[in-house]
Amino acid sequence: MDQLEAICRDLERIRQDRPLIHNITNFVVMNETANAILCLGALPIMSHAIEEVEEMVGIASALVLNVGTLTPDWVDAMERAGKRANELDIPVILDPVGAGATRLRTESSRRLLNEVRISVVRGNAGEIAALAGIDSEVRGVESIGASASAEEIAARFASTRGSVAAVTGEVDVVSDGKQTAKIHNGHAMLGKVVGTGCMSTAIVGCFAAVESDPFTAAVGGLVALGIAGEMAADTSGERPGTFHAHLYDSLYALDCARIRKLARVALA
Amino acid sequence: MDQLEAICRDLERIRQDRPLIHNITNFVVMNETANAILCLGALPIMSHAIEEVEEMVGIASALVLNVGTLTPDWVDAMERAGKRANELDIPVILDPVGAGATRLRTESSRRLLNEVRISVVRGNAGEIAALAGIDSEVRGVESIGASASAEEIAARFASTRGSVAAVTGEVDVVSDGKQTAKIHNGHAMLGKVVGTGCMSTAIVGCFAAVESDPFTAAVGGLVALGIAGEMAADTSGERPGTFHAHLYDSLYALDCARIRKLARVALA
Amino acid sequence: MDQLEAICRDLERIRQDRPLIHNITNFVVMNETANAILCLGALPIMSHAIEEVEEMVGIASALVLNVGTLTPDWVDAMERAGKRANELDIPVILDPVGAGATRLRTESSRRLLNEVRISVVRGNAGEIAALAGIDSEVRGVESIGASASAEEIAARFASTRGSVAAVTGEVDVVSDGKQTAKIHNGHAMLGKVVGTGCMSTAIVGCFAAVESDPFTAAVGGLVALGIAGEMAADTSGERPGTFHAHLYDSLYALDCARIRKLARVALA
Repeated sequence: MDQLEAICRDLERIRQDRPLIHNITNFVVMNETANAILCLGALPIMSHAIEEVEEMVGIASALVLNVGTLTPDWVDAMERAGKRANELDIPVILDPVGAGATRLRTESSRRLLNEVRISVVRGNAGEIAALAGIDSEVRGVESIGASASAEEIAARFASTRGSVAAVTGEVDVVSDGKQTAKIHNGHAMLGKVVGTGCMSTAIVGCFAAVESDPFTAAVGGLVALGIAGEMAADTSGERPGTFHAHLYDSLYALDCARIRKLARVALA
Repeated sequence: MDQLEAICRDLERIRQDRPLIHNITNFVVMNETANAILCLGALPIMSHAIEEVEEMVGIASALVLNVGTLTPDWVDAMERAGKRANELDIPVILDPVGAGATRLRTESSRRLLNEVRISVVRGNAGEIAALAGIDSEVRGVESIGASASAEEIAARFASTRGSVAAVTGEVDVVSDGKQTAKIHNGHAMLGKVVGTGCMSTAIVGCFAAVESDPFTAAVGGLVALGIAGEMAADTSGERPGTFHAHLYDSLYALDCARIRKLARVALA
Repeated sequence: MDQLEAICRDLERIRQDRPLIHNITNFVVMNETANAILCLGALPIMSHAIEEVEEMVGIASALVLNVGTLTPDWVDAMERAGKRANELDIPVILDPVGAGATRLRTESSRRLLNEVRISVVRGNAGEIAALAGIDSEVRGVESIGASASAEEIAARFASTRGSVAAVTGEVDVVSDGKQTAKIHNGHAMLGKVVGTGCMSTAIVGCFAAVESDPFTAAVGGLVALGIAGEMAADTSGERPGTFHAHLYDSLYALDCARIRKLARVALA
C-alpha cells in the first residue's frame, strides 16, 4: 500500500477506535501532549505511579515514555510499564529528552532501551546521536550539533538498536535500518512552542496504537504533526501563542484530503 | 430562593470575597484549573507538601482533591488536608479521576471517602458508578459505559455515601439523595479539551466556598462551566485550541444576566 | 549607559546568544515559564533531579529557583543547584512563591537565601516583606497587604540581604539597597492569568544570563514583561484566555523600538 494511504487509513482508525495512549511523561508537557492526543482523536491517560502503571498499560493500546523531567523513581515506573507492555505486545515509544546533556538522561534512556523493547525512538539529532554513540552537543533539550547527518544518525541507531529511529529537525528522518523516509513537512514556528517535540512522540504513539509497522507509524505521526504545524502557521503567522492554540485546532481538523495534498515524504 | 438566583448570588460572592481555593490536584491540569478558578473570580493555590497542607487549608475557603496523577504519598497529603478541613468546617470536593480504571485510583478514592467528610464528589458516570458499587467501564479517564442511568448512579452514590454526587456527561446530574437536578448546559467541545472535568470540580469548589448548601454549590458550578462552554463554542466553533482560550474568556465574562438567560436546570 | 539602552542591548544579546536558563520551578507554571523564556529568545530547561541539577546548571547561563509547589526534596535540589551555580558564577534568581503564607514556604525561601548567593529575588510585596521581617499578609500566593510601602520593602530586603529585590505589583519596584527603579509598565490583565509573576522571574533570569549587573537585569526583565502585557492587552481586551496567548506573541514580537517607545522607568 502507498505510504500516504497507510497514513490516511491509520488516522481514520485512530478516530474510529479512540485507542488509549498511556503516557509517562514530563511535567512541562503533560497537558499539551494530552491535548494533542485528544485533538488527533485518541484518548490520553497520564499515569506514573509504580503501583498502577502495569494495570494501566494493560488497558492501553500504546505506551509513550518521555524522560523530560525524570527522576530515578519515574524511570523505575517507566521500566516496569515498558516490560508489561512488551509482555502484552503493546508498542512502546521513547522520547529521550535531553539525552547527551546530562549523564542521568543519557543513562536512563540507555537503560530503557536495554530493558524494554522499544518500537520507535523519537528525538532530535543530538539526542539520538548521543544514544547511537555518535559525537553530538545537546544544550538542555536543544540539539546544537552532531558529527554525522540526521540520515546517518537514524540509520546507525536503528541498525544497532533494532528500534525505528525518528530524528526530527528541519527535515525529519525516519529509519528502520533498511529503509529511510525524509519528511519535509513542518514549520519553523513549531520550534517556538515548548513541547512540540514531545507532542510528535505522543502522536507517533497514537499511530503505533493502530499500525503494526512501526516505521509507517513513525512516518505517519511526523507527517500529521508537520502538516498541522503548516496549517497553524498559515492562520497565525509569527505569533507563537496564537500558533500554539491553532496547532490543536489543526490536529483536530486534519483529514485525509489534507494529508494527500500536503504530505511531502521521500522514501529511500 | 429560586435556584438560579442562588447561583447568581454565589457568583457575585465569589467575585466579591475572592475565596482561596486550595487544590491538591493532578499534574495535567494544575495550570488549567488554577486559571479557571482565577477567571471565575476566586484565588487558586496549589499545594501538596504534607508539611504544609494543614496550614494552607487553614487559610482556604474550600479544598479540592483530585486523584488524576496520584501516588500514595499524594493521597496521604490529601487525607491529612481533608481531615483538617473537616475540623475547620471547610468544604471538601473530590474528583475521583479514573476510579474504576485501576485499583489504585478506586481504592484511593474510597479511602478519601471513608476518611474525610466530602461535600461533593464530581466525576463521570463510570467513575461515580465504580464508587457506588455499580458495574461500569472506565478507560483511562473516559467513561465508556455503566449498567445504570446517571440519575440512578448519582442517587445511589448520594444516599449511600452521604455526599452530593455530581455526575457529568451530555446531561449533568446532581443528587443529594433526596432531590435531583438535571443540567442541560454545556457543549460537546468541552470534551475536546483535556481537563474540563477537573475544571468543573474546581469551579464547584469555588461555589462551595461561598455557599453552605453543597447541592446548590454543585449545581452552580456545573451551570457556570456549562454556560461558559456554550459561550466559548459560539465564538470558536470546532476549534479545540481556540475554544480552550475562549473558555477562560467566558468564565471571566460570565454574569448573572447570562445565567438567568441561559441556565437550563430541571429539578426533580 | 542609559538604562533603556542597556535593556535593548540585553534583549539583543538574549536573542543572539540564546542562553540556557535552568529552572527548578513549580508544577503549575512549568510550561508557561518555559514558553515565556523561549518566546523572549532564550532556551529553557526544566530539571529538578538531585542527581543531575549540578551537571545541568553547569551548562546553563542562569538558574531560576521557584518554590511554588515545593516539597523538602525539591528544596534540597534547589540548594544543591544554587551552590554549584555560585561556584561557577552563574546568576541565581529566586521566586519565593507564597512566602509568608505557610512556614514551609517562608523557611524554605530563607534557607535558600542563607545557603545560596542570590542575585535577584522577585516576589510580590507580601512575600518580600515576609522575608525582610516586615509584617504582611499573604493569602496563598496573593499579597493582601503589608505594613510598609513597596519601596521600603525592596530597600530593606536589598540592604539586609545583599540581593537585588524586585517587588512587583501595580507599580514594580527594584532596589539594590542604593538605587531604586520604579517601573510603571504592565497591565491589570497580567493579574488575570496564573503564573505571570513566575514568568517575570524567569524573564529576569534571561536578562541576568547576559547582564552582569543584577539591578539592570531585574529592571530589564520587568520592563520586558510589562510592555509585553500592554501589547497583549491592546489586542485582546478583557479576555484572559486570549490575553494569555497574546502575551507569548508579544514577548516574541518585543523589540528595541517598543522598549524605547513604551518603557516607563523612574530611577531614584
